Formats: sequence, C-alpha cells, structure tokens
Amino acid sequence: MSEKKRRARAAATGPASSSKKPRVSSAASYAESLRSKLRPDTSILTSLRALASAAASSSKSKAALKDPADQDPSADPASSYIVVADQDSTSVTSRINRLVLSAARSILSGRGFSFAVPSRAASNQVYLPDLDRIVLVRRESARPFANVATARKATVTARVLSLVHAVLRRGIHVTKRDLFYTDVKLFGDQSQSDAVLDDVSCMLGCTRSSLHVVASEKGVVVGRLIFFDDGDRIDCTRMGVGGKAIPPNIDRVSGIESDALFILLVEKDAAFMRLAEDRFYNRFPCIILTAKGQPDVATRLFLRRLKVELKLPVLALVDSDPYGLKILSVYMCGSKNMSYDSANLTTPDIKWLGVRPSDLDKYRVPEQCRLPMTDHDIKVGKELLEEDFVKQNEGWVKELETMLRTRQKAEIQALSSFGFQYLTEVYLPLKLQQQDWI
Amino acid sequence: MSEKKRRARAAATGPASSSKKPRVSSAASYAESLRSKLRPDTSILTSLRALASAAASSSKSKAALKDPADQDPSADPASSYIVVADQDSTSVTSRINRLVLSAARSILSGRGFSFAVPSRAASNQVYLPDLDRIVLVRRESARPFANVATARKATVTARVLSLVHAVLRRGIHVTKRDLFYTDVKLFGDQSQSDAVLDDVSCMLGCTRSSLHVVASEKGVVVGRLIFFDDGDRIDCTRMGVGGKAIPPNIDRVSGIESDALFILLVEKDAAFMRLAEDRFYNRFPCIILTAKGQPDVATRLFLRRLKVELKLPVLALVDSDPYGLKILSVYMCGSKNMSYDSANLTTPDIKWLGVRPSDLDKYRVPEQCRLPMTDHDIKVGKELLEEDFVKQNEGWVKELETMLRTRQKAEIQALSSFGFQYLTEVYLPLKLQQQDWI
Repeated sequence: MSEKKRRARAAATGPASSSKKPRVSSAASYAESLRSKLRPDTSILTSLRALASAAASSSKSKAALKDPADQDPSADPASSYIVVADQDSTSVTSRINRLVLSAARSILSGRGFSFAVPSRAASNQVYLPDLDRIVLVRRESARPFANVATARKATVTARVLSLVHAVLRRGIHVTKRDLFYTDVKLFGDQSQSDAVLDDVSCMLGCTRSSLHVVASEKGVVVGRLIFFDDGDRIDCTRMGVGGKAIPPNIDRVSGIESDALFILLVEKDAAFMRLAEDRFYNRFPCIILTAKGQPDVATRLFLRRLKVELKLPVLALVDSDPYGLKILSVYMCGSKNMSYDSANLTTPDIKWLGVRPSDLDKYRVPEQCRLPMTDHDIKVGKELLEEDFVKQNEGWVKELETMLRTRQKAEIQALSSFGFQYLTEVYLPLKLQQQDWI
Repeated sequence: MSEKKRRARAAATGPASSSKKPRVSSAASYAESLRSKLRPDTSILTSLRALASAAASSSKSKAALKDPADQDPSADPASSYIVVADQDSTSVTSRINRLVLSAARSILSGRGFSFAVPSRAASNQVYLPDLDRIVLVRRESARPFANVATARKATVTARVLSLVHAVLRRGIHVTKRDLFYTDVKLFGDQSQSDAVLDDVSCMLGCTRSSLHVVASEKGVVVGRLIFFDDGDRIDCTRMGVGGKAIPPNIDRVSGIESDALFILLVEKDAAFMRLAEDRFYNRFPCIILTAKGQPDVATRLFLRRLKVELKLPVLALVDSDPYGLKILSVYMCGSKNMSYDSANLTTPDIKWLGVRPSDLDKYRVPEQCRLPMTDHDIKVGKELLEEDFVKQNEGWVKELETMLRTRQKAEIQALSSFGFQYLTEVYLPLKLQQQDWI
C-alpha cells in the first residue's frame, strides 16, 4: 500500500477521531499528527539494514569472548559453572552408557553405587554480569543408593536415565508428563520426576531437549523466515494470519534462512494477529514471534536459534507493566529454575522497543486507557529494580522508575484507542525510524 | 514401517516391560498382548473408508431436515429462535446501515430512537433435542435512548455498531480487547463492550466472526488437510511436528480439501505431539486437531467448517474425567453463553473414542496411573448426568456412571505407562479396528 493511500484510508476511518470527548480527541489528533513524522519506508529500511549488518558483525566479535557455552562441559569438568549443551542422540546415549558402566563397576567391586549430582539450590544460581545471564555454580553432592536418605532418589535417577535411554533409542520425543506416567508408583508425583530430569540434564551436561523430553508448544511465528520442521519446508511468509506453530522439538528444526532485518518479539497474540494480518513483515522485513504470554521453553529455544544463526537484532514489544519486563528478562537472562541451561535458553541483547512507560506520555495514550498499578504490581516492579539484569541497563532502570512513580501501566492494546491499525501504521514504523529502543 | 518391524521395535524398547512390580508387569504384558489383536492396517482402512462414505451420505440426508441454521434469519423474523449466520462484509454493513437509517427516521419523526435487542438471559437458552444443541429463544426487549435506565447501554450499542462498521470498511479483523480500548471511557470495562458485541451479533443476525471481531487462536492442526489461510496454501501434511496454528479469522479460510477418512479431535497438546511426531495421519488418513484444553471459538469454528465441508466422522480423544466430557459437550452442543451462535460454533455427532472410563479396566490401566476423583470432580460429573445432551446418549450416561461409581479418572497420558508410543501403535489402531466409539 502506498504512503498516500494508507494516510487517506486512515483519515477516513480512524475510529478514535470520531470520538466526542475533547481529551481523547486532542490525544487522538496528536497521535494522528505523528503519522506525518514518518519518513518514507525506504529511508527507514536503509537504517534498519545498517543496523542488521552491525548486529551480525558484533555477534561475530562477541563470539570470540570466552563463554562457558562455547566449551564442551564434559571436556572441562574443572569449570566452575555447570553449562549444558545440545548433544546428538548418539553422544547422549554414550554418556548414559558410561555413567551406568561406572555404576556397574562400582557395584562389582563391592562399593555399591552412587551418582554425583550437581546441586541446583537457589544459592548456586548466580547472575554473571559478563555473560548477562543466570548460571549454575558447580557443586556436586553424592546420591548413594546404599543410604536410607537417598536410596529412593538414586532409584528414581536410575529409572529416568533408563527411560531417556529408551526414548533416544526409539528416536522419538516425549513430554515430562509422559515420562512421569511410565512409572507413577515409583515417581509418586510429577514434580519428582521433573526434578530428577533436571538433575540428569546437569549430570550428562546435555540440554533437556537433547534428552528428547520436550515442553508443549505455545508459540507461533510468521514473517520472513524459512525453516525445516522435521524435514518439511516451512515458509513463514505463507502461513496466513494464523502463523506457524513453533515446534516443540528444536532438534528437528533445520535449514533456517531469512532475509529479515530484525526479529520482532511480541508478548501477546492480539498484537501478533494485528501484525500478521497487516503483513507487517512485508513492509519492514522481519520475523514476528510470540509465546502468547509467559515464554515457554520451545519458544525460547527457537528464538535463540534464530538469533544465533541469523545474527539479527531482536526488538521486543511487551505491555508496559512489570510483567512485560519480567517476560523480557526470562527471554534474556533465563529463569532461575533452569539456570544450568541458561546458555541455550537465553537470547542476550534483546532491545526493549515498547510499550515503555515513557511512551505513555510521549504518544499521549489517553488517561482512561492506562490502568492503575495494583499493590502486587508495585511489589513486583520494586523487586525487578533490585535484580542485577535490570540494574545493568540504565535505560531500563529509568523506565521502571517512571512506571513506579506514575503508578500507571498500559497494555499494547491501549494503542488501539488511536485506531485499530495505529500499532502497525504509526507506532512501530516511527519507533523503527527513530531507533527508539533501549 | 512394517507391522513386523514395529512389533520388534516395541518389544525391544517398551519401557514398562522392564518394570519389576508384578502388578504393573501383568497389566503391561496384557497391554502388549492387545497388539497381537491388531489386524493389518489395510483391513482397518477398508472399514474406515466405508464409515467415512456413510458419514458423507448421512449428512446429506440430515441436511434435508429443517434446521434454523439453514434459513436466513432476517428472512424469517417470525422464527421462534434466534439463529445467527455467517454473512459477508457487504451484507453486515448494509444491515448496520438499515438499522441506523431506521433509528435516524425515528429521531426525525420526533420519537427518539430505540434498539430492539434479543434477550440472552439464561432462561432463554434452551437445549433442543431435535437439533442436539443449545439455542436462544427469540424474545426482544427495547433499549430506548430516552430512558435513564437504558440511555448508557443504547449509547454503547450505537458506538459498537459504528466501530464494527469501521472495521468492516477497513477489511481488517480485531480482537474484543482492541474494541474495548477504542473507547475505554464509554465502555468502562471490557465485559460491557463484550456483552454489547454479543447483542449486536443477535440484532444483526450475524456471527461474531462476520463482524470481524475474532478470538485469539489457541488450536493447532496437522494431517491430511489442505486449505488456504488468507490466500496462502497450507498443506497440513507438511507442517512438521509443530503443526499449523488454526487461524483466528475463519472467514479467511478457504479451499478446504482432504483425503482423510476421519477427524481426530484431541484434548491436549501432549497427545497431539505424539500423533504428529509419529505421523499417525500417514498410517490412518486423518486430520488431527487440538485446542490445547478448553476449546476456543476459533478451533470450534474451524472444526465445524471441516465437518460441514468434508462430511467426515469426528472422533474425540479426551481425558477420562468430567472435564474431558465437558470439553466434548462444548464442541458438540455449544456453551450457554453463546447459544445464539450455536449453529455455527457446534459440531454435532462427535463420537467419544476415548479415553473412556470403561477403557481403564478394558486396557488394564495400572491402578497407580489412575487418579482419585476430587469432590469437585464428582460434583461436576453429577451435574453432567443431569444435562440433556448427556442424557440423550445412553452410552455416555453409562460411562459417566462408571466414572462416578469407581471414583477414578485418568489422563490420555496414562497410556504412556505401556510405552510412549502405545497410544499411536496399539490403543488408537485397536479402537479404530473395533470401531469402539459411542
């Protein structure tokens, strides 16, 4: 659609402009005036292209930095952090074989057997500013079979190892719930088999997806991306409005190709739908993905793969509330729960594009479209201010302080008050033009 | 994979067979023995083919029955039920125009204006055994503007009409949340704009999707299905393990084609993933879809479209608990909340394939993989027994009584206790072979 046509259409139909309330109306006309600030797409695209190539070369130089994730953890048992890595089935199977073999030898020599299990206690989970993510400090404890306190857990560990072995031999993928149901009597409840599964990941130095135990999928993707899902070629520019469901098993994803200039990470599916229907990726070549709320493991793995292979900048569009920021931090720094796998699950250097607390005034989001923060919101916001990964980024701290001072939050949808397509036609293009991200 | 190869592989790796507990072991060996009952796939396929063609011809004869959905509701204002239908944008726009024109005339003649709004009160929502779904009885109430009690609601109605008009003119789709944010001050909270949106649907005799107000998507689909999503051709046999996200806007779906013999409706995504990874649809040509829990509007619309256009039998795989049955009933009979749209949202004649309460003993699901029903479960189960649509089906009543008597429930995943692929390799093929659905 041409610039002219788009403006004419918007002028004709912008629903907010028909409102009679003076307050809204002045905000709406200001919002509409921002449209005139937009430069032609070609000029925005030129600067985005420069940015994308800068991102590609900067990741190259960053790759030279020493990152535990770049080392083979089994090759360096002396490393002070536990870092798991993706491993192929053959390698995981042989790691299990070695573990079992050493247990068998120990039994035969009359010493019984014991597993050395890395401790995943909260005190071992630390944020490393250099790596900008949460990692797990190496501290192993023995889990002997011949001890009343640990006999059960040692048995569960052995059983999980044998189940993972069976799954890998079959070449299939299963969920944690499937795993639990294979021996309900032994596991008792799912939290136990889940916890031991994490132990096994750490023990073997493999990601959970290398064990072929996958989380259920929630995310969807559209845009300038082609990849293979289990051998099927998926062209994400041809996935209609619905998009392609992000596969639960990342190891079946291959052949990633893209001519996108950036990745747009969206918190919610309503905004995703708007972007997909307007085929935003055709105007500004990008890959659009969402986990529909709290990020799941499959979407986090997928985003990281895209970032690593395509070396594109990642821009995030989240609600202007503490949860928006929290979601961003999960993508970037990982959750404490899976700190041992943070290297594979996290995507560093995500830029906070919007909706930021400062945007509310900047874009004159009408008062009645802003929501007052609840006490719980404020508590979460204050906690975030104390987190290392927020403190690292001055811009984030300022925005969070603004949010806490004004005690106001707003959803991405609040931009609909200026017209349903304001998000794709004005807000985002202007943000991209002004490179307004932090 | 050949029958022989499959058996050999299963025998080699069935994880449950390595268990030491005698109880589990005998159940497991019985479960494994069921594998030998399986006839060759060709024989199962022959009977499925007969079934599919029977379904196709029976829907033809059923279409001859008088169903309010087959009539144009605007053509028959005397009908005693409100039945909305899918309408194209032009038709909806002209209905809005007519409504506004008549309001304008009424104002000019000095009588002010008033909307005639169908009442969606619970007492108007009745289950019709003939149609096997919940419908809305026609009973309209006036919503005059010149009345303190209704002035606000009449204003909201007018505003929603104008917003829908704008959306249709733009040719876009929006969410309920977007709609709410266009005039937060007037709507106050989203439940109000949502309720009036339903009123407007009834007033115009259009489905909510005809108004281009869509729900967010949750469902995914894989299998022997080709369709166009907003003009993009989607081949669901080439959607890898992740599947294709079901589009939120059903009116952009077209060109549905399939060589499937049935539709397999799955409650949860873990089972969906198993079926997708094992490419179950290549062994037994079918379309597999799931809404990942409670069915959303987009998935219900999509299922109905598939059923209506392809005339295939629909078989459901849900948990053996009251919620599994409840989910089935939402697909089949609709929710009370949207009774006016039940003709478009419901898919009659879904067969309950499994997991049924009687399956637990029949397939000897080990005791420890069954869960005790909670008090709340039992309450929900008892309520279901009183529902007309359950009473209609004797088989369902019996199963529900079995569930309440044994006070046991089980998830689809419980079948994993016999091996991760027991679901796709034994349970489902055997069910299909024995045509064991009700």
